[in-house]
Amino acid sequence: MSTDIGVAVIGAGYWGPNLVRNAQATPGMRLEYLVDLNEQRARTVLGDYSTVRVSSDLAAVLADPAVHAVAIATPAGTHVEVALAALAAGKHVLVEKPLASNWADGAAVVHAAEDAGLVLMLDHTYCYTPAVQHLRALVRSGELGELQYLDSVRINLGLVQADVDVVWDLAPHDLSILDSLLPDGVVPVSVSARGSDPLSCGQVCVAHLSIELSNGAIAHVHVNWLSPTKVRTTIVGGSRKTVVWDDLNPAARLAVYDRGIETLDPSTLGADVRNQTRVSYRIGDMVAPALPEKEALRTMMAEFHAAITEGRPALTDGRSGLRVLALLEAASESLRNQGVAVPVAGVLA
Amino acid sequence: MSTDIGVAVIGAGYWGPNLVRNAQATPGMRLEYLVDLNEQRARTVLGDYSTVRVSSDLAAVLADPAVHAVAIATPAGTHVEVALAALAAGKHVLVEKPLASNWADGAAVVHAAEDAGLVLMLDHTYCYTPAVQHLRALVRSGELGELQYLDSVRINLGLVQADVDVVWDLAPHDLSILDSLLPDGVVPVSVSARGSDPLSCGQVCVAHLSIELSNGAIAHVHVNWLSPTKVRTTIVGGSRKTVVWDDLNPAARLAVYDRGIETLDPSTLGADVRNQTRVSYRIGDMVAPALPEKEALRTMMAEFHAAITEGRPALTDGRSGLRVLALLEAASESLRNQGVAVPVAGVLA
Amino acid sequence: MSTDIGVAVIGAGYWGPNLVRNAQATPGMRLEYLVDLNEQRARTVLGDYSTVRVSSDLAAVLADPAVHAVAIATPAGTHVEVALAALAAGKHVLVEKPLASNWADGAAVVHAAEDAGLVLMLDHTYCYTPAVQHLRALVRSGELGELQYLDSVRINLGLVQADVDVVWDLAPHDLSILDSLLPDGVVPVSVSARGSDPLSCGQVCVAHLSIELSNGAIAHVHVNWLSPTKVRTTIVGGSRKTVVWDDLNPAARLAVYDRGIETLDPSTLGADVRNQTRVSYRIGDMVAPALPEKEALRTMMAEFHAAITEGRPALTDGRSGLRVLALLEAASESLRNQGVAVPVAGVLA
Amino acid sequence: MSTDIGVAVIGAGYWGPNLVRNAQATPGMRLEYLVDLNEQRARTVLGDYSTVRVSSDLAAVLADPAVHAVAIATPAGTHVEVALAALAAGKHVLVEKPLASNWADGAAVVHAAEDAGLVLMLDHTYCYTPAVQHLRALVRSGELGELQYLDSVRINLGLVQADVDVVWDLAPHDLSILDSLLPDGVVPVSVSARGSDPLSCGQVCVAHLSIELSNGAIAHVHVNWLSPTKVRTTIVGGSRKTVVWDDLNPAARLAVYDRGIETLDPSTLGADVRNQTRVSYRIGDMVAPALPEKEALRTMMAEFHAAITEGRPALTDGRSGLRVLALLEAASESLRNQGVAVPVAGVLA
Repeated sequence: MSTDIGVAVIGAGYWGPNLVRNAQATPGMRLEYLVDLNEQRARTVLGDYSTVRVSSDLAAVLADPAVHAVAIATPAGTHVEVALAALAAGKHVLVEKPLASNWADGAAVVHAAEDAGLVLMLDHTYCYTPAVQHLRALVRSGELGELQYLDSVRINLGLVQADVDVVWDLAPHDLSILDSLLPDGVVPVSVSARGSDPLSCGQVCVAHLSIELSNGAIAHVHVNWLSPTKVRTTIVGGSRKTVVWDDLNPAARLAVYDRGIETLDPSTLGADVRNQTRVSYRIGDMVAPALPEKEALRTMMAEFHAAITEGRPALTDGRSGLRVLALLEAASESLRNQGVAVPVAGVLA
Repeated sequence: MSTDIGVAVIGAGYWGPNLVRNAQATPGMRLEYLVDLNEQRARTVLGDYSTVRVSSDLAAVLADPAVHAVAIATPAGTHVEVALAALAAGKHVLVEKPLASNWADGAAVVHAAEDAGLVLMLDHTYCYTPAVQHLRALVRSGELGELQYLDSVRINLGLVQADVDVVWDLAPHDLSILDSLLPDGVVPVSVSARGSDPLSCGQVCVAHLSIELSNGAIAHVHVNWLSPTKVRTTIVGGSRKTVVWDDLNPAARLAVYDRGIETLDPSTLGADVRNQTRVSYRIGDMVAPALPEKEALRTMMAEFHAAITEGRPALTDGRSGLRVLALLEAASESLRNQGVAVPVAGVLA
Repeated sequence: MSTDIGVAVIGAGYWGPNLVRNAQATPGMRLEYLVDLNEQRARTVLGDYSTVRVSSDLAAVLADPAVHAVAIATPAGTHVEVALAALAAGKHVLVEKPLASNWADGAAVVHAAEDAGLVLMLDHTYCYTPAVQHLRALVRSGELGELQYLDSVRINLGLVQADVDVVWDLAPHDLSILDSLLPDGVVPVSVSARGSDPLSCGQVCVAHLSIELSNGAIAHVHVNWLSPTKVRTTIVGGSRKTVVWDDLNPAARLAVYDRGIETLDPSTLGADVRNQTRVSYRIGDMVAPALPEKEALRTMMAEFHAAITEGRPALTDGRSGLRVLALLEAASESLRNQGVAVPVAGVLA
Repeated sequence: MSTDIGVAVIGAGYWGPNLVRNAQATPGMRLEYLVDLNEQRARTVLGDYSTVRVSSDLAAVLADPAVHAVAIATPAGTHVEVALAALAAGKHVLVEKPLASNWADGAAVVHAAEDAGLVLMLDHTYCYTPAVQHLRALVRSGELGELQYLDSVRINLGLVQADVDVVWDLAPHDLSILDSLLPDGVVPVSVSARGSDPLSCGQVCVAHLSIELSNGAIAHVHVNWLSPTKVRTTIVGGSRKTVVWDDLNPAARLAVYDRGIETLDPSTLGADVRNQTRVSYRIGDMVAPALPEKEALRTMMAEFHAAITEGRPALTDGRSGLRVLALLEAASESLRNQGVAVPVAGVLA
């Protein structure tokens, strides 16, 4: 239909098929092309029964007025070039993480989109899971109290890659979640990172990031390509409640604990107990909230559609992608300097 | 019987009752006294039906020739003084961790014991669990291959303490286990630590330690007093196999995975695949070995008895306690300096 | 003290030591004797440090006026004889399950106790766990709504016994829990049981009991000595909420689900949807209530003490033991008749 | 292509889309039609981008020589009619479970297929999971030893249906798995079943089936539409090893325990220990075998293709569907007769 937003998915590799499937299923969107340098690969993704067009000619696709937006799932090193070309052709852009391989390039893409008045959105898929959306509401509504610590573990037997280390491969997930959770006024201050390359393959395969937040809390991220078991668990500790998010436990992804420790005002205590009883414990119930069963990628694609039609930034807009890049750059510099704390670059002017 | 080793347990607080129970149950040992400044507390520990003597007079107990050895479970700040007094009285010494509140004091105790030819042993209980003993054999026999990484998480709602932070309270467990596992020739080189005190109680309550080992691997320890859930999991990654030790899963505490990633020799690959296929995966079975059901503290107490009767160092002797102190001191210094890597002090001359 | 209730534990085998430990720890109770035909075994249980007396002369112990009550942990076949002797001597009686090896003998013991005005109590330990006590309150307060089904699984590698099958060995736990949970007015009507003896050892080792309740619900019990894994899970389904009790999950033994299915009144529905939409689903949160950390056996012993001092029946009194016997007898008869439904004997006149 | 097997999927309801997806992805198969009385529903299933034809005219589709086979996913009550029509038209048939609503009708379909020399296959999907295929090999190779018991639990908040009870809805999964696992020579003898309808909705919602096998073992199946938690666990106990299959634990679906109990030959024992020591325990390791990651439905569809091209019965052929029907009929009769043991009908002559 003429009112549908025409979309081209660019890149038929690992992630492209997911974008193809969800673009097709999103009301108000029409998938026009699947673009890949290897047309045969694109055809295989679509299967023998599809009416979607295949192309290896990006320029021609960007010149087609039926295409209003592109979803970029090409190799990370090409994101900036493809995104800038699409923006120059007046197309809205959805791009896989990371936005760019460095902060400066990312900022250029953000500026280009803002100057052109086009939507630039990062596919930070996890931010659209029912679990993270619930968690975000808990943190930002104040129900958790003050954020005390965050601990994120994302480990698995992973694909050791030639051009990217485990931090740039996996940590964007954790960092974009962190970015979306942080209450107003709390920002990352510095990053200390240690990593190792026990396979001697030229890339850090195991890494630990400690991110100091402006309220004094520490957010820690453990990413690891060598773990024989898969763990995807994030603990968000608050002064009132604490949440454990176990993404691999479909029966209870979120567990909200009404538990914690509180410091007591010493002036209210007798001298004899003042030393021992500086804290009190609160051991309450655990609640696993019922979460809707929704595919995050579907929600993400709907947000892309809504941002375009409503002319507003997406939840995970270009600037959120840029904040993640700032953390990644700081982590890399700390890794190269044996864990020294590296300040996080300021936000875009 | 005259051939039994007479023991006095010193300290009737949190841990003392466990030593009392196990000293009574260890063949060849005879519990003579439970010593505490508060005799009533000691009596309550023993209950109304015990024939064991209670005393608040440490000097008198140390002067009793029926006492051949002491087990010290007094507050951490008194370990050095009590241990030195016991050694001066010619008694063998078992002491709770930490050996001392600093390396220099610990070294003094070790020297005193070695000069006197007496057993000095740390109650590093976890080292005597069937799980750690099995794990130790796997690592040191080479069955795991080269040690690639170690990741230890020990978090729980813990007792915030007035005189010790979470690193000195909990990490000795992980560090003593690490010490017992390391294959010959691999030693800790430096420690980077970040921590925070979100309760503003004057003590670090959440901390992350990254310990660089001499073979390039990283051992990471996460200790946390604020977690609403209890986690005690250690992953030991090797080039051939990887072990996950979950101490809270009695049905399968150890899981040995025949999984991993191997780098391929590029010269054996064709040019076209050289870039993508630098690694290969090995996805084999997981084996949860049957472990004997033995109480670690019983095994530890038997080792104390054996070390005394055989005139040999215990598995967790004073020097192991000293190595743990060196790691703790480095961690504390790093904590005070925003995570800068601090070299680990050399071993005792 | 003169006001303490003097207790003799009879039987120093598998369970006796637990009774010894808890009798010693219960305020207002004084353990006078541990009785066993084998005095050496009793001495070993008490250890080398105990002041409790050992005896192999039951008659003499029952004649001692310092003994006001006995706790019987002898082999099942001797329960009736020992209990009757104790009652005849004017002692209150706590007895391990089962009360007797048949209903008629059990009734005789109950009558003897009631005639003598003495406390007769069954050590149905599970009924005193914080989990079952919480569960009981949920069911009996109506918070779960109408009881819809109960499913109890108790399987493990068990001790195949010469004189008792798996039903009489394990099911008393489930049946006594069921007995304590049932709301007023709901009673067991019949039992169908199937079992097998795949080891050809002469005893049923695997059994399934389906107990029809008077409100139409079914309570099912699966007991099994041959399972390589240990499972102790009970689901109690109600019309408003459903509880899963996993006794092996200390982090969340009880999980209360606000979930269920409700039938709709067809008259309120249009003809077109009447067929498909006869039910509606309610998917709410799960709550794992914080439970106190209390040893069940300690609570049970305190109840024994309270029943004696307050002159009232215990929660798990003789009649509850008799109701369990009625279910066991019906199950055995059904087992012998290929699962035919056997009515449950009426209660004591 | 001319050598492809042309397929029509009949029924665009709950399961049809899965058949559509897998028929399209199976090499050597060509999806020609999606048939549904409601063409709009079929179109929605295919989406806006498909070239597959939609039809509501079954007779026309069956008359099309491009169609060699049909996959039937219509409501259960229509399976027989549609299957007979397809066989009469010379088409191979894949049909969802159950084959028919009674044994006699099922036998008619089986005869029709055998007389026509056409493939008749049941979509017993679970039998094609890597877990069941591994389990089947373990049982039938003798590695588990003699089959001692089987326990299958399949409970969840389910769709209460107007025309079928929980036994006919869920138990076909368990019964078809049982059918595929049984070693040669072991067959079901009788079924005892108890169930209840606590919602008073006219259908049994909770049921327990005890199936007596010809070797004396019992296979038990618990199906339940009212459980707030989802459990899909099967234990297969053998004299040498026992397997626990937890279909909801992707990290270790199968756990093979080298554990068990063995009876000892009394003649080898001294008289004193003969009574107590009639059994011995074997506590060995647990192995969780690495299983391939394959979608069961893909494997099932490939088996359908292979059976057609190789002119052989499929693993889950019509006769396996008939054996499942025999068990379902016996269970229903037992349910109507309060759990009395009902013999299982003999196999097809």
